[in-house]
Amino acid sequence: MPDFGIVIHGGAGAILRQKMTSELEAAFRQALTDSLTAGYEILKSTGTSVDAVQKAVNIMEDCPLFNAGKGAVFTNAGRNEMDAAIMDGLTLKAGAVAGVHHIKNPVSLARLVMEKTAHVLLAGDGAEEFARTQGLEMAPKEYFFTERRWQQLQEAMAKEKELKGDELSQGNPGKEGKFGTVGAVALDRSGNLAAATSTGGMSNSRYGRIGDSPIIGAGTYADNDACAVSTTGHGEFFMRAVTAYDVSVLMKYRGLDLAQAAETAIHGRLTELGGDGGLIAIDRKGNIALPFNTPGMYRGHYLSGGQPRTAIYREKMI
Amino acid sequence: MPDFGIVIHGGAGAILRQKMTSELEAAFRQALTDSLTAGYEILKSTGTSVDAVQKAVNIMEDCPLFNAGKGAVFTNAGRNEMDAAIMDGLTLKAGAVAGVHHIKNPVSLARLVMEKTAHVLLAGDGAEEFARTQGLEMAPKEYFFTERRWQQLQEAMAKEKELKGDELSQGNPGKEGKFGTVGAVALDRSGNLAAATSTGGMSNSRYGRIGDSPIIGAGTYADNDACAVSTTGHGEFFMRAVTAYDVSVLMKYRGLDLAQAAETAIHGRLTELGGDGGLIAIDRKGNIALPFNTPGMYRGHYLSGGQPRTAIYREKMI
Repeated sequence: MPDFGIVIHGGAGAILRQKMTSELEAAFRQALTDSLTAGYEILKSTGTSVDAVQKAVNIMEDCPLFNAGKGAVFTNAGRNEMDAAIMDGLTLKAGAVAGVHHIKNPVSLARLVMEKTAHVLLAGDGAEEFARTQGLEMAPKEYFFTERRWQQLQEAMAKEKELKGDELSQGNPGKEGKFGTVGAVALDRSGNLAAATSTGGMSNSRYGRIGDSPIIGAGTYADNDACAVSTTGHGEFFMRAVTAYDVSVLMKYRGLDLAQAAETAIHGRLTELGGDGGLIAIDRKGNIALPFNTPGMYRGHYLSGGQPRTAIYREKMI
Repeated sequence: MPDFGIVIHGGAGAILRQKMTSELEAAFRQALTDSLTAGYEILKSTGTSVDAVQKAVNIMEDCPLFNAGKGAVFTNAGRNEMDAAIMDGLTLKAGAVAGVHHIKNPVSLARLVMEKTAHVLLAGDGAEEFARTQGLEMAPKEYFFTERRWQQLQEAMAKEKELKGDELSQGNPGKEGKFGTVGAVALDRSGNLAAATSTGGMSNSRYGRIGDSPIIGAGTYADNDACAVSTTGHGEFFMRAVTAYDVSVLMKYRGLDLAQAAETAIHGRLTELGGDGGLIAIDRKGNIALPFNTPGMYRGHYLSGGQPRTAIYREKMI
């Protein structure tokens, strides 16, 4: 059994091998490995699971490949609206932010909410005002501009025009969608669990939509009595199914093991509702699970005594 | 067993008989009875549980006594920031809004989110923009001004000044706090469950704080396979404990009956975390539960074959 370890994801969806170049695939694998290694080093040197998941997520937030932080998608209004959450499985303390525009690392702000306030969730301009009181690194909107995401917005808007009249069902990426979110879960040497998730939301979204990532219980949950979970996928379904907490209580209340609980949450309830996506989970024994019902999920793990492993499609970890 | 019924709450907290006048007590009981009766009439005439909980909550939103809609408290910036959620136990569809300022009946906007969009949660100005596309009734900020709430803000700010340096733990109402939220759960003649919750948030809150009311799983949940739940209390603890969904899965996964599940959620997990508040719940057999760990909770029920019953303190329903 591993003494400590970290599991990460970088989003799930219709990630198809035939649409990927070998250069892009290598870049994704390298970014996942960098994130895993940074988290692992913290755990190895007796850092906490909370430190490790924050660091692993920070690295993906700083990478333009993922839909979080630097690589966040654009809303219909051409803005970046980012959400994040973090939870400490020892204390069940949690922090989250929703709809922030100028925070370089939203998960770091979520951690400050957890540790420096009596609150769990802060949103919008109020959350940014709090960030300034803490001296957290802000970034101008230009920082979040990436040509790839801007083109995705233009394509989504063009596609929507064809679907005229269907405006209100916007934001539904359907079976074709790729769900960008990053997340990490970890077990540290003290046996404590933590989970963190960060996202740029949905491309072309409107009306201040908030997905599951910053919702404690839906996109993020950690409880030393069960497991730590971070999800990625079509957020609305994860919110209705309360997926992250569902894994936890399938273990605690129904007595399933981690793998069974994670499989049941994704392939049972979520799939029955019609939701697409996946999750990563770890328990106190170092068991891990990475189920998903989409063609692919960017993912990886690095457990004590092992090596960093990554995968993208339905394939064995390499 | 009742064929149909509705249960409501109007907030929990340090509601002490010695601080209450008989006039105010009578006004609260009348408002609760009005809400119950309106919901009951819908259920009696074969309306849906979703219609009934929305109507019952609307009536409390329109009453200045409760911290929701008209009677919403003020934030530190002197604004009203309201949240609401609704969930249909038949379809597990849900809708919610957070941080709206000009919506006369936030729970009605939550219902439009549930029925007219692909989303679950809309926040802030975006949510209001969506409301306008739907022709929902807006209200100017003057509508939400009540002298009583304004004085509460002045008192909270004066008290905070004394606590200088503790600014960041603001919003923690402690054991003295009164937690204003309204909610309803119902069972209709077709055997379908629904839950709704609406709140004006925390007096003197800062930084765009969002509590548990609009969070599916924390403050609101409905599942025909288990029960419908609406909570009220110190929201951050309900978020960390995922209380509304917890009642549901204590029934589904652990096999508890409604009363046991509701008691366990409040007096077990929530209380262990240090959280104060209560909840209302109903299942498909018409069993109801109204546990709370505070001195009082404004509450009532009206079941088919019965009469409207209300209570405020730790007392028998009258």
